[in-house]
Amino acid sequence: MDNRGVLAVISGFSGSGKGTLMKALLEKYDNYALSVSWTTRKPREGEEDGVSYFFRTQEEFDRHIEEDGFLEYARYVDHSYGTPKQYVFDQLDQGKDVLLEIEMQGALQVKEKYPDTVLIFVTPPNAEELKRRLVGRGTEDMETIKKRLARADEESKGMEQYDYLLVNDSIERCAEELHGVIMAAHARMGNHLELVNNIKEQMKQF
Amino acid sequence: MDNRGVLAVISGFSGSGKGTLMKALLEKYDNYALSVSWTTRKPREGEEDGVSYFFRTQEEFDRHIEEDGFLEYARYVDHSYGTPKQYVFDQLDQGKDVLLEIEMQGALQVKEKYPDTVLIFVTPPNAEELKRRLVGRGTEDMETIKKRLARADEESKGMEQYDYLLVNDSIERCAEELHGVIMAAHARMGNHLELVNNIKEQMKQF
Repeated sequence: MDNRGVLAVISGFSGSGKGTLMKALLEKYDNYALSVSWTTRKPREGEEDGVSYFFRTQEEFDRHIEEDGFLEYARYVDHSYGTPKQYVFDQLDQGKDVLLEIEMQGALQVKEKYPDTVLIFVTPPNAEELKRRLVGRGTEDMETIKKRLARADEESKGMEQYDYLLVNDSIERCAEELHGVIMAAHARMGNHLELVNNIKEQMKQF
Repeated sequence: MDNRGVLAVISGFSGSGKGTLMKALLEKYDNYALSVSWTTRKPREGEEDGVSYFFRTQEEFDRHIEEDGFLEYARYVDHSYGTPKQYVFDQLDQGKDVLLEIEMQGALQVKEKYPDTVLIFVTPPNAEELKRRLVGRGTEDMETIKKRLARADEESKGMEQYDYLLVNDSIERCAEELHGVIMAAHARMGNHLELVNNIKEQMKQF
């Protein structure tokens, strides 16, 4: 148990910088692995299978659901997205801390099935800053931005169900905090009961 | 609430290196404050009032108990030891993370009164190593060592009531872990409910 990896779910508003945050963590430390999701949507220009997503047909996806092959899955608009169980468990068994970047709905599914999962929500320091970041990108039309703000409003409703809130006002500091949360998860007493029992047994022999 | 310090109790076997660990933390980061205990024992050679302890008479100590001035207190052999509430709260209010190095009995008292307190137990990697560290000092006679081992045996019984276990096989790594545990305590969702509510309120105005 002691050397098993930690399963951490990272959610956060679009514009919270959670992608950059995870990238910073992966670059700085070697104990992390990202989970790659399955999706039924078509690859976009330049997307490689197995990098940002595993691209699968709806039939393959549905079969995988039947085989209980997903940690969580969800349908958005016309496409299905899911986190493959096998890959995540393999990484955890090898001692890697696995970061899942998924939506709230999936996050709560995972936590219910695996209560040791650490749920982390990333937010800009306030809603005005969030709005500024969303609008400030300048890459999308007002319609898209409005949709995103509406979704952020929707997501904010469940924020308090997460274990941790990270306020992303500086990527570097926030990445340190995220790493701290993962280190703390390793140090939880529940992960070390075997060691505690060993120490107690050895003590008796003094 | 967001900027208040974290109250952390550090306990551990004699020989676990918890003193060195806390020193390493204080040297590396500026967010920590150590609590200085009151004691009724006489100062030893070179001990200054207010540094390792505040030296007080039994009358002063008892009056402070009556005034509810201690976070926790206990009596060992012929002397009383206590953690002064005022100092700890002042530091927490100033945003300092306060480290209390106290025994298990006091640790559990503090946790009961202040459930947000983080209880951390420090241990060498195994009991053999613990024995080696205790005996290896070579500064005490066998009688003292045996007493200490017996007390370690006693203390090991309550280890699992702590929130975190830190295995001190490297001071540097272990100090990083301890710092991670404190950072995680800051990031707990319960500390950020005001921010969460503010974000929700601001969202509604978009």
